[in-house]
Amino acid sequence: LVEPTVAVDAMGGDHAPAEIVAGARQAAAAGQRILLVGDPSRIGDTGGLPVLATSEEIGMTEDPGRAVRTKKDSSLVRAAEAVRDGKAEAMVSAGNTGATMAAALFRMGRVKGVARPAIATVIPVPGASPTVLVDSGANVECSPAWLVQFAEMGAVFHRLRFGVDAPRVGLLSIGEEPEKGTPLVKETHELLAKHGSGLNFVGNVEGRDVMSDTADVIVTDGFTGNVVLKTVEGAMKFAFGAVLGALRSEEVPDSAAASLMEALLPLAAEMDPDSHGGAVLLGVNGVCVISHGSSSARAIVNAVGVADRAVREGLVEQLARAVAPPG
Amino acid sequence: LVEPTVAVDAMGGDHAPAEIVAGARQAAAAGQRILLVGDPSRIGDTGGLPVLATSEEIGMTEDPGRAVRTKKDSSLVRAAEAVRDGKAEAMVSAGNTGATMAAALFRMGRVKGVARPAIATVIPVPGASPTVLVDSGANVECSPAWLVQFAEMGAVFHRLRFGVDAPRVGLLSIGEEPEKGTPLVKETHELLAKHGSGLNFVGNVEGRDVMSDTADVIVTDGFTGNVVLKTVEGAMKFAFGAVLGALRSEEVPDSAAASLMEALLPLAAEMDPDSHGGAVLLGVNGVCVISHGSSSARAIVNAVGVADRAVREGLVEQLARAVAPPG
Repeated sequence: LVEPTVAVDAMGGDHAPAEIVAGARQAAAAGQRILLVGDPSRIGDTGGLPVLATSEEIGMTEDPGRAVRTKKDSSLVRAAEAVRDGKAEAMVSAGNTGATMAAALFRMGRVKGVARPAIATVIPVPGASPTVLVDSGANVECSPAWLVQFAEMGAVFHRLRFGVDAPRVGLLSIGEEPEKGTPLVKETHELLAKHGSGLNFVGNVEGRDVMSDTADVIVTDGFTGNVVLKTVEGAMKFAFGAVLGALRSEEVPDSAAASLMEALLPLAAEMDPDSHGGAVLLGVNGVCVISHGSSSARAIVNAVGVADRAVREGLVEQLARAVAPPG
Repeated sequence: LVEPTVAVDAMGGDHAPAEIVAGARQAAAAGQRILLVGDPSRIGDTGGLPVLATSEEIGMTEDPGRAVRTKKDSSLVRAAEAVRDGKAEAMVSAGNTGATMAAALFRMGRVKGVARPAIATVIPVPGASPTVLVDSGANVECSPAWLVQFAEMGAVFHRLRFGVDAPRVGLLSIGEEPEKGTPLVKETHELLAKHGSGLNFVGNVEGRDVMSDTADVIVTDGFTGNVVLKTVEGAMKFAFGAVLGALRSEEVPDSAAASLMEALLPLAAEMDPDSHGGAVLLGVNGVCVISHGSSSARAIVNAVGVADRAVREGLVEQLARAVAPPG
C-alpha cells in the first residue's frame, strides 16, 4: 500500500500562502506526504517539502469557469492535474470554491455513472450524529435523478467518515408528508421511497432537523443547501456572540464568566469550522477537499487529514459502486 | 374611529381551546374588542366575551384545501367570514397554517393587484433590526413578478411594524453577485434593481444575513423561506440547549450559572416566538395573523396586539397602494 500524497494549493485562501504552507508543514511533520502547489518565489520556506511550481493564481472572486479555462498554470488547476496524473492521490484547496469545483471536474473528470458532482458539508451537531448536507452549493438547479445520486453518494461519505453503517438519509422539504414541497422534492421523494439498494431513506425532513438527530445525510439542491449552510453559520455566530455578550455583562462576576467560558470551550471547539477539515466534492474522479476561505493552518491540517482518510478508505471507488445510473 | 374587533379562532392550535381563550380574555381585559369563534360547548368560560358559535373544527394535519371547502362551519372558516362580513376587522388563528391561508384567501379575497398572498415572519435579531422574511411558506413555487410584490409588501409591513422609513430589502441568494442563483433569483434581481417606486433594494443577501443587520426585509420563495425559518428555529434551539447543558456541567458553580442565566434572560425573552405575535398573511383583503401551533395564552395576546395595530395602521390599504401590478 502506497502512502497517499496530498496536493495542497498553497495560493488559495484568504490567508494564503503563509497559513496554508504552515498547515502543510504541520501535516508533513506528522508523517503526511505532501505536494505543495504554488509559486516558489512567494510561498516562503517550505521546510523541504516538494513543490510543484506554478506561475498563476486564481482570485477568490474570479469567475470560476473563465479562470480555470484561461489560467492553465494556476496552482488550483495544477493541483487537480497532479491528482489526474498520479503525482498525488488527493487535493486540498481553500481558494475560490467555484474554481476548485471546475478545476477538479475538468481535470479529473467524473466518476463513471455520476451525473453531477456535489458538495458534501459536515455540520457538527454536538451530542448527536453530524449532519452531512449534500449538495451544499455545487448545483443551483437539479433534477430528481441527480438528488437520488446525491443521496447515494452522501450515504457512502457518511458511512466512511463517521462509521455509521446505514446512515439515515432525509430529503429536505417543508413538511414530513410526501406530497409537500416543490415538484423536484415530490419526484425525488418518490424515487427515494422506491430505491432498492439499501439506502436508509427516512423520508422528508425540515430545516429544524439540520441541527437535530433526525437524519445523518440531508439531501437537497445546491441553492437550498447553500442557503441552509450559511443560515446555520449565521445563526451560530449570532448565538455565540450573544452568549459572549451576556458573559461580559456587568451582572456576571469575572470568576463566573471564566468558569462558564471553560465549560463552553469544548462546544465552541466542536463547532469551529477549522476542526472539520472542509467540504468534499463527491463524484469527481479523485479526492478533492474544499477548505473554507478563511482557513488557518489548523484547518489545512484537518483538511489534509480528511483527504488522506478518503484515499485510504477508497472513497472514489465506493462512490462508483454506490451510484445508480441517472434516470 | 371605531375600535378594531379581532376574531380569534378558539379551536385552532395545539393548546386550543384553553390557552387560546385564556389569551383572548387577557387581551379583552386590557381593552381589546374580541370575537371568539368556536364551539360554545367546548370553549369553557369566556368571561362574557361574545362568541360566534361554530360546530366544526379543522385539525392541524388536515389537507388545507379540502378542509376549507368541506368544513364550512369550522371556526377557521367562520373567523375569516367574520372579517369579510365586517363583524371583525382582523382574525387570529394558531391552527392549521395552510387552512388559515386558504380560509383567508377564499373568504376575504386578495388585495386588488396582488398576485399571491405571502407569509411575512419576523425573525428577532437582538442588537439589530428584526428581519422580516417573506415568503416564509405560502407559495412553494413563485414567479419573479410575485417576488417583486413580496418585496413591496414586506417593505410596507416592516415600515408599519418597526417604524423604519425605508427598510432595506435583500433578495436571498447564494452570493452577492447579481448573476448568482437560480433563474428565479436572477430575474427577480433584475426587476428589483430597476424598480422605481422607492423600494430600498440592497441587492442579494445570503443565509448568514438572516440573523445579521444587513437587510430589514429578505425576499424569497415560500419553499426556501420555510426551510430558512425552520433552520433558524432549529439552530437557536440547539444553541440554547448546548449552552444550558454547559451551564449544568459540574465545573460550573451554581452561582456562576445563575448569574449567566440572569444575563441571558432578556435575550431568551426576545427570541421567544411567543413574544412576536405571529406571522402575517400579506395580500389578503383583511388582516390575518397566523400564530404558531404551540401558542400559549401570551402568544395569543401578542398576536391579537399585532392584528389590532395592523388594522389601526391601515396595513391592507397601504399594501394596496404599494403593489405594482404583476408583470
